[in-house]
Amino acid sequence: MDKHIVFTAEQIASFDKQFRTNLINSVPGVKATCLVGTRNSEGVNNLAIFSSLVHIGANPPLLGLIFRPDSVERHTLSNIRHNQYYTMNLLHKGILAQAHQTAARYPADISEFTETGLNPVEMNGFHAPSVRESAVCMGMLAREELHINTNNTILLVGEICWLQLPAGAVTEDGFVNPERAGTCGAAGLDAYFSVRGEQRFSYAKPGLPLRSDPSFV
Amino acid sequence: MDKHIVFTAEQIASFDKQFRTNLINSVPGVKATCLVGTRNSEGVNNLAIFSSLVHIGANPPLLGLIFRPDSVERHTLSNIRHNQYYTMNLLHKGILAQAHQTAARYPADISEFTETGLNPVEMNGFHAPSVRESAVCMGMLAREELHINTNNTILLVGEICWLQLPAGAVTEDGFVNPERAGTCGAAGLDAYFSVRGEQRFSYAKPGLPLRSDPSFV
Repeated sequence: MDKHIVFTAEQIASFDKQFRTNLINSVPGVKATCLVGTRNSEGVNNLAIFSSLVHIGANPPLLGLIFRPDSVERHTLSNIRHNQYYTMNLLHKGILAQAHQTAARYPADISEFTETGLNPVEMNGFHAPSVRESAVCMGMLAREELHINTNNTILLVGEICWLQLPAGAVTEDGFVNPERAGTCGAAGLDAYFSVRGEQRFSYAKPGLPLRSDPSFV
Repeated sequence: MDKHIVFTAEQIASFDKQFRTNLINSVPGVKATCLVGTRNSEGVNNLAIFSSLVHIGANPPLLGLIFRPDSVERHTLSNIRHNQYYTMNLLHKGILAQAHQTAARYPADISEFTETGLNPVEMNGFHAPSVRESAVCMGMLAREELHINTNNTILLVGEICWLQLPAGAVTEDGFVNPERAGTCGAAGLDAYFSVRGEQRFSYAKPGLPLRSDPSFV
């Protein structure tokens, strides 16, 4: 086993800001990451990267995002508050640099689509742009905003209005295989990872041995 | 480009329950996943898998978890409410079957550590057990609980009290490389993935070309 280091709360608080930011953002491992597409009241399309995508529930189909109101992400939140609709577009290997570049602090009247070369698509008149280069895209409707008092961040809960998937990535039982979809995730603020299937198991019950799906990898 | 399929909200609502559950849980791709260790009022150690880990903030260092109150996860939430302290322990290839088995509905007086063969560790008298076989472990203190009205789930926000890392996984700038740590994540309810570094970029600024770190992969 590799040698371990332990950091206490006091040590973490004493680290310089950049070290602590990198450490705490990366310690959970690879995070579900997406490009959030919105449109502002002037009709400008906005695109911003978020690695705080979290599953909230399947019925109704709900996904959450965490917003820091004082950051670059403010355009996204303010557009969603105005318009209610937004999109989530997953990353893959071919668009990592463009996806990362959307984190730059562009003024509100500049579209990150134009600046990065990613292409906006308006899916069947949906009120927010999706990303043509993303294989997995979702149209979302904002349902609820919760204020996190501990650090003044916000959890936005949205409902899936539609989703687009590569046909070859969906198995018979509804599972979307992220390796087949070519989905990438982020760790920390600036590092991107692809994924490789290790094991898929049967439903876990007390006293019952697990079966590992031999066709999975 | 692969052929795409699109599902509407109406189609998603009409799918059979298991298909929809698999679809919606897997569509965001690989999620940050951990084993949550708690202790109940009788002193029994509990361990349960969660793939709803989300970054809330770096200073103070905060991570969130989503709980469905009506599920097997209820023991974990009730223990945290009683005790305030808990641990988060990341997955790696060597413990995937044991980690998945913690999802079985064991009675409250049965320890998932005993049932799965994972070993509890009491880090310096911390009030909740961590997992000896996990390379990345965190001690947590519950800070805030938010009720999500849309589907009656709960966001628990916790602060990192200590964290343990493999020394070789932490780079000079505080970044914890999940590939070097051997961290795995979950997609859907039952599939586990390892990760491979693709690119690490410089800080994004308008008009400035990104640099990709050549030493990253």
